[in-house]
Amino acid sequence: MAKELTSREDNYSQWYNDLVTKADLAENSAVRGCMVIKPYGYGIWERMQQALDKMFKDTGHENAYFPLFIPKSFFSKEASHVEGFAKECAVVTHYRLKNDPNGKGIVVDEDAKLEEELIVRPTSETIIWDTYRDWIQSYRDLPLLINQWANVVRWEMRTRLFLRTAEFLWQEGHTAHATKDEAIAEAEQMLRVYAEFAEEWMAVPVLRGVKSPNERFAGAVETYCIEALMQDGKALQAGTSHFLGQNFAKAFDVKFLNKENKQDFVWATSWGVSTRLMGALIMSHSDDNGLVLPPKLAPIQVVIVPIYKNDEQYELISDKATEIKKALETKGIRVKYDGRTTQKPGYKFAEWELKGVPLRLAIGPRDLENNTVEVARRDTLEKESLYQQNLEQKVANLLEQIQKNLFQKALDFRNENTFKVDNWSDFKVRIEKGGFVMAHWDGTSETEQKIKEETKATIRLIPIEGYPEEGNCIYSGKPSAQRVYFARAY
Amino acid sequence: MAKELTSREDNYSQWYNDLVTKADLAENSAVRGCMVIKPYGYGIWERMQQALDKMFKDTGHENAYFPLFIPKSFFSKEASHVEGFAKECAVVTHYRLKNDPNGKGIVVDEDAKLEEELIVRPTSETIIWDTYRDWIQSYRDLPLLINQWANVVRWEMRTRLFLRTAEFLWQEGHTAHATKDEAIAEAEQMLRVYAEFAEEWMAVPVLRGVKSPNERFAGAVETYCIEALMQDGKALQAGTSHFLGQNFAKAFDVKFLNKENKQDFVWATSWGVSTRLMGALIMSHSDDNGLVLPPKLAPIQVVIVPIYKNDEQYELISDKATEIKKALETKGIRVKYDGRTTQKPGYKFAEWELKGVPLRLAIGPRDLENNTVEVARRDTLEKESLYQQNLEQKVANLLEQIQKNLFQKALDFRNENTFKVDNWSDFKVRIEKGGFVMAHWDGTSETEQKIKEETKATIRLIPIEGYPEEGNCIYSGKPSAQRVYFARAY
Repeated sequence: MAKELTSREDNYSQWYNDLVTKADLAENSAVRGCMVIKPYGYGIWERMQQALDKMFKDTGHENAYFPLFIPKSFFSKEASHVEGFAKECAVVTHYRLKNDPNGKGIVVDEDAKLEEELIVRPTSETIIWDTYRDWIQSYRDLPLLINQWANVVRWEMRTRLFLRTAEFLWQEGHTAHATKDEAIAEAEQMLRVYAEFAEEWMAVPVLRGVKSPNERFAGAVETYCIEALMQDGKALQAGTSHFLGQNFAKAFDVKFLNKENKQDFVWATSWGVSTRLMGALIMSHSDDNGLVLPPKLAPIQVVIVPIYKNDEQYELISDKATEIKKALETKGIRVKYDGRTTQKPGYKFAEWELKGVPLRLAIGPRDLENNTVEVARRDTLEKESLYQQNLEQKVANLLEQIQKNLFQKALDFRNENTFKVDNWSDFKVRIEKGGFVMAHWDGTSETEQKIKEETKATIRLIPIEGYPEEGNCIYSGKPSAQRVYFARAY
Repeated sequence: MAKELTSREDNYSQWYNDLVTKADLAENSAVRGCMVIKPYGYGIWERMQQALDKMFKDTGHENAYFPLFIPKSFFSKEASHVEGFAKECAVVTHYRLKNDPNGKGIVVDEDAKLEEELIVRPTSETIIWDTYRDWIQSYRDLPLLINQWANVVRWEMRTRLFLRTAEFLWQEGHTAHATKDEAIAEAEQMLRVYAEFAEEWMAVPVLRGVKSPNERFAGAVETYCIEALMQDGKALQAGTSHFLGQNFAKAFDVKFLNKENKQDFVWATSWGVSTRLMGALIMSHSDDNGLVLPPKLAPIQVVIVPIYKNDEQYELISDKATEIKKALETKGIRVKYDGRTTQKPGYKFAEWELKGVPLRLAIGPRDLENNTVEVARRDTLEKESLYQQNLEQKVANLLEQIQKNLFQKALDFRNENTFKVDNWSDFKVRIEKGGFVMAHWDGTSETEQKIKEETKATIRLIPIEGYPEEGNCIYSGKPSAQRVYFARAY
């Protein structure tokens, strides 16, 4: 089973596609660029949603739901937003089909043409700020702290499962504030929430910073981001949080009476993470045997496989396995007993390895005699024999170790693949090999653009807290006050 | 505040609209027929989702996600389905916009016309069965028990918040089975799940039955349904579960190797409930003061309002309220302390009544002295003074009583408004006044259609378990073996 996976060394991109489909995470659908998220993949996404949703609520946010469709004219209202979002998108032009007069199926009814086309939302700032105008009159209505879980559509030409699809699932927070400082604090808070989620739940270490103007969200004053490093040395933007200034308030005329009894425009943020996180999760930890999941997000944390030669052994081992399953479940551990009689243990081992279950317990006749189980860790592929006594505590500890180990491994990998480079020829060589490159940059869009054209690398982020260090731009030689992170990116 | 609500007697329809908007549940958006679900309304929907999702998982179902868009040609594959669903829908014809050459905003790029139009899903049978073809080869792949939480779009001409909107949120279960009996058992099981949810969580009593052929889902062999009676005497279909036979398997060529090693078409069900349930919830319990929520679904179950004359009293009462809040929360009760100093108690009372909070606790200076609180029930509007001692248990009991009382009240109302009628003139009079009318019907679509034309009443359901009783059709006089339920409906 696992043999069918292309190895990472042979073809990283093919390995990823193989893994996503063979581990039953997702597949391409009949609709160009749109994926089907299969139950096992969706189970991981649901766990991500639950953890994030709790973090959003713990920081005072509520969920709501805004329309899927946005009138075309809304996009023209915010000048830079229209450039970024209103181009490659799904356009609804008609609201009715009719039987083909020639008897060949159904055709669009030309009499049912919309007066104004509707855009399937690529992001919801416009429709939400159009709504907020009626919700906000005075400072007493602020802050407005709202999140939405939704599907969005961006008509991407080249798509890849989870990483870039025409339709994807995400959450988008949209908050409104009375002051600039409060809005900035909110944008920064949500970046911290994302970083904490990535590191503590996904076991994916992330760098935090702000984007250069070239890479900023269309309509934002500042875009905060978290960036992770994949095993092939490419960076992946895992979440963004935008300080939108008063841009959308001005575009949609959202004013409020402030405490000084004066009319002012409202300050805004928006922030989002998407099913793209699934791609980050997969590419951070998985290996040539398949998926490797951090225990906190694994739909199944422990799988128990019986090893038997006859029905009598099967019965006895099944009883023991069921007993162990129950004991583990009392600790809140998610356990599956794979009692299928149609498959051999070797097949099951490979299957659960492919699906990334963190711990596998195997129980054979000798284990029954000795009160032991064989425990195999998915992250290290190490096996050991453990006494059944107090197994639930041992398993809980192991799961915690795996969670930490995955994070540490990914962190070590990133550290080993982060380089300081001080001249242009080294930069070009280094970027070619992958990893983050910390280099000086003169702060201009022109230089950034040139570097991108020549190396395909972009500035992934400018560190927020900053490591002030005088230097000279690797490209132009002009002075620079701090290094920024470059990488090729997904 | 509550005074602004139109009374039910004056104008039931206006009362409903007032209530939905003034209680902050939902509002119309800038997009025709699409609603914005506001945080308070969404909080109720989230609780519905959680309860249903758990019930689905407890019966062995998993969640997945299928594309928003469906190729137009898919609809033509199932003959009756196309008639029912492929007409009034949102059609995506283009995938790009461009700047208007005349400089006036953005326009559709005619060069970016899709080869085949995409329909925004009105329901997902077609795209899902097209996917299942690759997932199902043998009986070992069955049953497939999948649910999806999603948005769907049906281009309704006349829309009403929650009850009928162009876009709505729902869940749709789509299961695949090896045998007819198993599929029927699944469809019936999910109807029981829906009925249990409606009665135990929403406190809405429902009738269970099957639809007449006229009212069947387009593509189903049998449509099971639950029907509730609203306060204005109109029925509301609260959920449906369909036995689809092999119709979709045949349309999408989904075959499997059965245990006898023969190829056969797969048997199917689908079932769904939507944000329409919010309409059923509102219209079942609410009154002229506003929303009345069953405690199990109320985002806030208990609100505490301080009654004070000066800062010192405010401080003391706030401390006590916070202490009580914490004690209630240890019992898992959802509590809000409304410590706003900008609003008077009377205003707060009216606001929380409007929002349907099941219990209100008021604490004043005398309560501090006497160790009491004033407790007001939203369902009966009764007040009583309770000692603070063991308050959490008393409140928990009260919440349980309210939940039961709401169900009983709604059940009594339905019983009082269900009538047996045996002739056509009585039928016409009775239908005009509202309620369920149990009458004999000859079983033909023609008669059903005539009755609908003359009275606007439809057959809501044919009882499943049946009350066999010989009689004569109220319209045609032909023989009938059991009564069916008629009503005018939402």
